[in-house]
Amino acid sequence: MLVDAQPRRSLWPSEQRDALWVIDQRQLPHRLAIERLDGVEAVFVAIRDMWVRGAPLIGATAAYGLALQAHRDAGDAALQAAAQHLGSARPTAVNLQWALQRMLGRLLAVPVAERRAAAWAEADAIADEDVATNQAIGRHGLPLLQAIAQRRPGPVQVLTHCNAGWLATVDWGTALAPVYQAQAAGLPLHVWVDETRPRNQGASLTAWELGQQGVPHTLIADNAGGHLMQRGLVDIVIVGCDRVSAQGDVCNKIGTYLKALAARDNGVPFYVAMPLSTFDPAIEDGLRDIPIEERSPRELTHIGGRTADGQWAEVQIAPIGCGAANPAFDVTPAALVSGLITQRGIVAARADALRALTEAKP
Amino acid sequence: MLVDAQPRRSLWPSEQRDALWVIDQRQLPHRLAIERLDGVEAVFVAIRDMWVRGAPLIGATAAYGLALQAHRDAGDAALQAAAQHLGSARPTAVNLQWALQRMLGRLLAVPVAERRAAAWAEADAIADEDVATNQAIGRHGLPLLQAIAQRRPGPVQVLTHCNAGWLATVDWGTALAPVYQAQAAGLPLHVWVDETRPRNQGASLTAWELGQQGVPHTLIADNAGGHLMQRGLVDIVIVGCDRVSAQGDVCNKIGTYLKALAARDNGVPFYVAMPLSTFDPAIEDGLRDIPIEERSPRELTHIGGRTADGQWAEVQIAPIGCGAANPAFDVTPAALVSGLITQRGIVAARADALRALTEAKP
Repeated sequence: MLVDAQPRRSLWPSEQRDALWVIDQRQLPHRLAIERLDGVEAVFVAIRDMWVRGAPLIGATAAYGLALQAHRDAGDAALQAAAQHLGSARPTAVNLQWALQRMLGRLLAVPVAERRAAAWAEADAIADEDVATNQAIGRHGLPLLQAIAQRRPGPVQVLTHCNAGWLATVDWGTALAPVYQAQAAGLPLHVWVDETRPRNQGASLTAWELGQQGVPHTLIADNAGGHLMQRGLVDIVIVGCDRVSAQGDVCNKIGTYLKALAARDNGVPFYVAMPLSTFDPAIEDGLRDIPIEERSPRELTHIGGRTADGQWAEVQIAPIGCGAANPAFDVTPAALVSGLITQRGIVAARADALRALTEAKP
Repeated sequence: MLVDAQPRRSLWPSEQRDALWVIDQRQLPHRLAIERLDGVEAVFVAIRDMWVRGAPLIGATAAYGLALQAHRDAGDAALQAAAQHLGSARPTAVNLQWALQRMLGRLLAVPVAERRAAAWAEADAIADEDVATNQAIGRHGLPLLQAIAQRRPGPVQVLTHCNAGWLATVDWGTALAPVYQAQAAGLPLHVWVDETRPRNQGASLTAWELGQQGVPHTLIADNAGGHLMQRGLVDIVIVGCDRVSAQGDVCNKIGTYLKALAARDNGVPFYVAMPLSTFDPAIEDGLRDIPIEERSPRELTHIGGRTADGQWAEVQIAPIGCGAANPAFDVTPAALVSGLITQRGIVAARADALRALTEAKP
């Protein structure tokens, strides 16, 4: 997608194939900080500390992390240890495990001498497939927006939570892919951007990337979405996901569940953009069994931003000593989901439908 | 309630009866700033800019504003103009209109020479009645918490949104009055404090006042409440209100509706603490007819707090030029409300029940 009108991906390997370039997303929207990661530990820190985030992007980043490992030591033990370490950086999104297992499966099957080249090739394939997957999600989601546009005049009003845009993927995004496709198709639209406390990915990432692409948007507090739906100001909710269970329960950024409840209460369709790498058939009941990451209380008690003179500063917003709980994800039961937009088409959030889709030949 | 272990109200007239002292709540939790308001314009600014906020407190503050007017010029025209000006400071909470109409009704009925004394007496009465009302709300709400405590061991888990504590009233609070009564009765309890974006009244006011009273509490993002309810970590939701319609629709801080939806979905009782001054029988359908204040986008795009060196600073968290919408309240339909805790007891959120309660002799 565009940054300062230039096309760009959210990560790319160095020309010499000895490092990975990523955007340190913690510094957005104030600064576009591009950082070089030259080993497994740097990749681990970038995932854990959320320089990169978003289920598809952390999968691709971890894949390149294993390529960096293969660059140094491609032995079975070294690769397995690196995969285990990278896999422990974030617990909730299943793409991280998916990408690491795919890399290990490919690398352990070839002689050690060939692993370095194979690792870069496989990580590149994961990244390129992510781009193609998201383009396909965009194509399959577009008719939902076109149908709304045909029903009445004025811009199609989309609400999204967190950032499931190109910054959460290698390119295009998941939830925002249909929005970008609609923009390309000339559909009038407007996006309500949930701020997404406590890390403000909506305010800092989604608002920034929509601004860079020229998509009309308005920032709102996470608290406001229900009110907007009550007033008929939201046509459709589209969010991303970090893990989807066998029966279609959707684990996504904390607060997604509240928007799904409001959507149901107001007859607003609630769609989840889901690359199939996010599907976890090993988990039946998402509410019971998906591990929910608990992050630092400091994400709630303190907040960083840009001062009037353009510097970055952090301020404390809670009383000194105030305790905080910070679950990073919640689970939206399948019954609240209108449909899952995958690269193979839209599927119902039901075990039978998901099984049929995922077990069919691509 | 207590501040630094000393009992205190949230506002009080000067000893010479020529000014009103209030807490500039915008500076909490970082600084207890006590400010002197010496005329109608100062009171108007304090209400409009939210030095004082909370439906009961802005009613009492406005009453003292009219007393300050009577101090200077107690003629009919001057009082009516002051009432109109003060009444325009905030549109949603009905208590502001209620207090001003009560003051005008009292003052216009007595000779001009007697109005100054009458005005201070009536404002004092409104403030004292608010304290008594909130104590009664606490008494009536206490059995709800006691019943939970009897059902199972461990602390009673209360979730509240925004600040409906003593800082939102003259003393005791509305939603927190039952909590303070339960604390006094020795009931083990714990309060989940919604941060309450965009103005963070939970993080800055509720967390601060619960800390001052020694009530165990944990700050959470507004996004987290549904997740906690799904996991059985919330026994009861209690919130305040800014206006309740004839049929029991509850207008309160933006985001309240989302918590009510989550409470219903998880079988958690959802109670609203409502002094009868907040009841507006002139409005039937709250969703259709209660005016919703739209506040500055800057409340979303910027945030103030305390820097590491103890100074106050404001930082921008959204991209430069990003637009924001900021509705300050939403309406929770009566069907989602388990009950209204009033000074006369708990009443169902239904037109017949509300009519019977409010039309009965006190």
